[in-house]
Amino acid sequence: MTKRSVFFLSDHTGITVEAMGRSLLSQFPALEYDTVHWPFIDTIEKAKRAAGRINQETMRSGARPLVFSTLVDPTLRACFRDSAGLIFDFFEHFTQPIEEELQIPSAPALGRLHSIGKQNAYNERIHAVNYALTNDDGAVTRNYDSADLILIGVSRSGKTPTCLFMGLQHGILAANYPLTDDDLDDQNLPRVLQPYVEKLYGLTIDPRQLQRIRKERRANGRYSSFEQCLSEVQRAERLFKRHSIRFLDTTAMSIEEIAARLLQEAGQESRLD
Amino acid sequence: MTKRSVFFLSDHTGITVEAMGRSLLSQFPALEYDTVHWPFIDTIEKAKRAAGRINQETMRSGARPLVFSTLVDPTLRACFRDSAGLIFDFFEHFTQPIEEELQIPSAPALGRLHSIGKQNAYNERIHAVNYALTNDDGAVTRNYDSADLILIGVSRSGKTPTCLFMGLQHGILAANYPLTDDDLDDQNLPRVLQPYVEKLYGLTIDPRQLQRIRKERRANGRYSSFEQCLSEVQRAERLFKRHSIRFLDTTAMSIEEIAARLLQEAGQESRLD
Repeated sequence: MTKRSVFFLSDHTGITVEAMGRSLLSQFPALEYDTVHWPFIDTIEKAKRAAGRINQETMRSGARPLVFSTLVDPTLRACFRDSAGLIFDFFEHFTQPIEEELQIPSAPALGRLHSIGKQNAYNERIHAVNYALTNDDGAVTRNYDSADLILIGVSRSGKTPTCLFMGLQHGILAANYPLTDDDLDDQNLPRVLQPYVEKLYGLTIDPRQLQRIRKERRANGRYSSFEQCLSEVQRAERLFKRHSIRFLDTTAMSIEEIAARLLQEAGQESRLD
Repeated sequence: MTKRSVFFLSDHTGITVEAMGRSLLSQFPALEYDTVHWPFIDTIEKAKRAAGRINQETMRSGARPLVFSTLVDPTLRACFRDSAGLIFDFFEHFTQPIEEELQIPSAPALGRLHSIGKQNAYNERIHAVNYALTNDDGAVTRNYDSADLILIGVSRSGKTPTCLFMGLQHGILAANYPLTDDDLDDQNLPRVLQPYVEKLYGLTIDPRQLQRIRKERRANGRYSSFEQCLSEVQRAERLFKRHSIRFLDTTAMSIEEIAARLLQEAGQESRLD
């Protein structure tokens, strides 16, 4: 087993550099690594402190750390030039070819203003999160006219986190409605949903996985019995097919993945572009 | 104004490649661009279809598109080798230097399994989202023992979306408690919070911004008057200082940024590492 320290450096939240670094490293299953997450490096002092830490870590471990970085400002990047770490800077690599292609110079300082420029996006996201909260679990059904999507499925099939994520990440207005035992027996589409067939999207899940998730909520009883989970999932899928409602099996998916698939298949673009 | 088409290609959700591409492009304010978001390219057929679309777009616009890509599988990347677009592939660039440094070969096929391998992370995130929902807005206060953080602040200072985001993104258990007019007059810490001073974090916001946000909820009345917003914010900040509670001004920040700052300043690591 090869072992290394890995640093994620950013002048902002560091979410992107960490996601990118981790996907790169996932190609090296034989590598074991400890991570240091260092966001908001926006002054020379902070950059020098991070560079010092990388050098210390090199001394301590005897192997140079892998350093992934998205520092927009070249003067901050310069602080790592003599660092003992192996630096992979995404901006350093890709900015120049873009400049050459477009024949316009980059304006690095502007990058840091983006959170202010995105005030509208902030408001839209907050609005979308509030929408998801208000219209969660069928609690309120009078706002479906303004919904981008309405997710339906049995309890704990992943509706709520998916709606919240689509709101936070994409500003999408997503409501959700739980299919109850009565709905499932009946096999008719609940009356409140009928005018919105075009916006409906079903979620389904492997019954064993559903049982595991339900057991965390209520360990015993019919709700988390395998028979009940199996029966609900089967009847939900039958209902989706009967009414030609598109549906997605969420069993092995992350929340991001469920959201991205739904949006792709519904032909729904992010509202924040 | 230079105008180009921009493609974001991924074999997964495409969130990371889009975030990375957009930050790179934010350095070119003189560039105007349309985006095509193309996730889940996981077969040769899909890759060829995307490559065909890039070529069409080049013909149509007369300028080659900028193509950002995170395709793990080299055989998929190869489909774009003769493409008319200018390809920036993050994996292509960085995988080889990592191989050389570590002296181990990459195993690209494994990358695609990561959503299954992360089932535990999925469960932790769902748990954290449910925690944030249950313990939102002071509705329930008996679970504070298990909280990682408890956010406090006036109504609409950003508590709920921040708690949800920390749950979704980092698996952090975050509760939140609204400071009411009575709490603010009193200037004592609400009794239910007193045992948890170490976990408290205050959010504050510019009163004009607060007023704008509140007006979206209720256009008229005291709740969204400037005087009320100003007075609440002033008294909330006084209360934070009086009880030595760390606090953050969220005015010009995105939700990610608020979350990342809070975690950094509270010394709280993501629970999903």
